[in-house]
Amino acid sequence: MILTVTLNTALDITYRVRSLRPHTSHRVTEVVERPGGKGLNVARVLAALGHEVTVTGFTGGATGRTVQEQLTAVPGLVDALVPVTGATRRTIAVVDERSGDTTQLNEPGPTVSAAEWSAFQEAYEDLVPSVSAVALCGSLPPGVPVGAYAALIRTAKAAGVPVLLDTSGEALRRGVAARPDIVKPNADELAELTGSHDPLRATQDTRRRGARAVVASLGRSGLLAATPEGRWRATPPAPVHGNPTGAGDAVVAGLLSALVENLPWPDRLTRATALSAATVMAGTAGDFDQAAYEGLLERVTVTGEVSAA
Amino acid sequence: MILTVTLNTALDITYRVRSLRPHTSHRVTEVVERPGGKGLNVARVLAALGHEVTVTGFTGGATGRTVQEQLTAVPGLVDALVPVTGATRRTIAVVDERSGDTTQLNEPGPTVSAAEWSAFQEAYEDLVPSVSAVALCGSLPPGVPVGAYAALIRTAKAAGVPVLLDTSGEALRRGVAARPDIVKPNADELAELTGSHDPLRATQDTRRRGARAVVASLGRSGLLAATPEGRWRATPPAPVHGNPTGAGDAVVAGLLSALVENLPWPDRLTRATALSAATVMAGTAGDFDQAAYEGLLERVTVTGEVSAA
Repeated sequence: MILTVTLNTALDITYRVRSLRPHTSHRVTEVVERPGGKGLNVARVLAALGHEVTVTGFTGGATGRTVQEQLTAVPGLVDALVPVTGATRRTIAVVDERSGDTTQLNEPGPTVSAAEWSAFQEAYEDLVPSVSAVALCGSLPPGVPVGAYAALIRTAKAAGVPVLLDTSGEALRRGVAARPDIVKPNADELAELTGSHDPLRATQDTRRRGARAVVASLGRSGLLAATPEGRWRATPPAPVHGNPTGAGDAVVAGLLSALVENLPWPDRLTRATALSAATVMAGTAGDFDQAAYEGLLERVTVTGEVSAA
Repeated sequence: MILTVTLNTALDITYRVRSLRPHTSHRVTEVVERPGGKGLNVARVLAALGHEVTVTGFTGGATGRTVQEQLTAVPGLVDALVPVTGATRRTIAVVDERSGDTTQLNEPGPTVSAAEWSAFQEAYEDLVPSVSAVALCGSLPPGVPVGAYAALIRTAKAAGVPVLLDTSGEALRRGVAARPDIVKPNADELAELTGSHDPLRATQDTRRRGARAVVASLGRSGLLAATPEGRWRATPPAPVHGNPTGAGDAVVAGLLSALVENLPWPDRLTRATALSAATVMAGTAGDFDQAAYEGLLERVTVTGEVSAA
């Protein structure tokens, strides 16, 4: 059982309209809804890979109930979300059929009280000892202390459970200092954390700041990993075209699933790269193309050097 | 007990954003939700006036549940919505704080099956005999036959219950032919029905087409009524500034509440005009300002002529 944490869960709604023109009225031609927030996306990919996954974080109001109903319909996924008084946020992506562009409207989400944050921490402490790995994913909702991920990392480490962190800004900075097993920044997050736009230097610097291993997702340049066992770069066989939504979450799912299967780093990176590319290629944002994934597994290139022991 | 029918119920969501720019991401600064669809708005005004109201129409999915939860929180309002398989639609009004303009996104709503339409008609037939008046309000959802309002009008008339119709287009044309007691078109609906842009001629023509009484809502020009008892024009004491959302629904509520109290036509028109103006003046779209309403009751002007008996 893998545990993913999504403190800022969402219901992601996609609307298609013929052409978005401000200050006019639009008939929505298609409505698609799915549970959102990075940790829930990671959980869905893990479940599709055949892993059992527990999801926790916060849920509130009618939108939270809808998210929970849709989650429990996913085989292999266990709902351990913690209730809050405020309503879970909706995000609305308005896709303009004419231009193909997307306009995003994001609700702020609930403000989490101190009592609700304490209740979450207790629930998390109860869950952690029985899982094989933890992923902490996404932004912090209003009210949650900025050191939240650092606290959750210390709890996991005290229980001897490996923990992966995927967030940004100050929450990432504080989290890295609490010594997570893996952090997965993208190029912007890595540069913001370290002040360096050289990914090689920046990943090494992130390890010095506390992360045991760093896997940077660099878009078309693939993955760059700095770990105690060595440094590697993983790239798909050809540039991939499509929708990058969820590609980073697929990397997290690939890394975690290979971690709990005790695969060596090059195999972890192969899986993460293949899943990420198969997500970009899929028709539906955030899903991955199973056949493309299996084909890509044979064709990802991993180059690098193993550290001297 | 008054019955309002809303076949195309909705959850009306209002988002405030700083400035709406297509193809960018926006943080929503305020979210307001309320049950929507003309018949539900009419019911809320009637309940605020102290009437007991039953609401029927269709409800489906998680959005339908939210609408029902919010309706049952209104004192004096009874929920008799009929379930459908599809999901009740959301409408999203995005208010641009900088310009004050609104961009509207309307979901299509559920498609009603023949079996669901039959189930609704049976529920309606059970409700009608025990109510003092019926209001049929708004557009028809996909799947409902265009002659739906005509059928519902015939059911009410067979039970001896007065019925008001507020809709547009072909549903209005067919409904008028079924001889409702009152129709309440706005200027555009009246012109589309009759082909005449002269409200005096058009209201008379609408009566010839079957409506017993016609009350046209003409925006700043107030109300124009053509009835068997006479013809009247009702105007507020001064032009009213504010948000016209829900002003037409306030007119329907005013007419119906005065009808069941057996008030003469000039008093019905006074109440409808005062409620409409107090709705435009209210801070929240669709609500009315109680103090403004009471003040306006004394100051609405009604002019006209009583028919020779």
